[in-house]
Amino acid sequence: MLPLLTRLDHVGIACRDLDAAIGRYQTTFGLEVVSLEVNEEQGVREAMLGVGLVGGGLRPGYVQLLEPLAPDTPVGRFLARRGEGLHHVGYGVADVRQALAAIGGQGVRLIDERPRHGSMGASIAFLHPADLGGVLTELVQAADPA
Amino acid sequence: MLPLLTRLDHVGIACRDLDAAIGRYQTTFGLEVVSLEVNEEQGVREAMLGVGLVGGGLRPGYVQLLEPLAPDTPVGRFLARRGEGLHHVGYGVADVRQALAAIGGQGVRLIDERPRHGSMGASIAFLHPADLGGVLTELVQAADPA
Repeated sequence: MLPLLTRLDHVGIACRDLDAAIGRYQTTFGLEVVSLEVNEEQGVREAMLGVGLVGGGLRPGYVQLLEPLAPDTPVGRFLARRGEGLHHVGYGVADVRQALAAIGGQGVRLIDERPRHGSMGASIAFLHPADLGGVLTELVQAADPA
Repeated sequence: MLPLLTRLDHVGIACRDLDAAIGRYQTTFGLEVVSLEVNEEQGVREAMLGVGLVGGGLRPGYVQLLEPLAPDTPVGRFLARRGEGLHHVGYGVADVRQALAAIGGQGVRLIDERPRHGSMGASIAFLHPADLGGVLTELVQAADPA
């Protein structure tokens, strides 16, 4: 069968102060912000920083920094419970609807039954960590899967 | 300047039962084990599962599943404190010694002052999460950086 996951797309990192976190990753690692967005539906202000050079139609990986818009949001509750740190991992898929059907068929609970709007125009969906060894897992169908 | 981080190399996931975790990632996502090792120095039994196709000299990303060899190991203590889940993120670097010098020069505390042995023959070093927003961060100089 074709591989369901096409790439390690990003790590999502919860932070209290997005600007400070961006500064830290720029200064320490020389990473650059490629996208800065507010996602009201998910209750976050977020930055995508590219890791690795883009060339020949290949996409880089990303560090995704997430600051909650309010305490009563998923990332706000995560910060209150666990503090700053790794929040989720995102994998690329060719077709997020097909991937959800295949993964749901394996008995993994889906947080999102249908795709929703993610960073940089992607269609994304989250899988429940309880069925994946405690790892909140995101599927990412990029808007431009070059 | 040249980018310090060349790629999003892997996510490290702490688990209680490595064989069960491998089975879950194989069944759910169709990932395959490309390396299975015991690292006595780090106190883990671990598997690397490739994410994304390898072609044209490109390396895939990896899911690294980590089972502690004993409770009194870093991953064993992590499991006792936080349970199963995301443990660290690993980024590729061209030269881990040079990267450590550059990052240490930015005031980030180094867990490893000198590289040590990582998965699949890589030279690796860990950076302290306290200076990186709670994220345990690994630098990976691959044995075969093709």
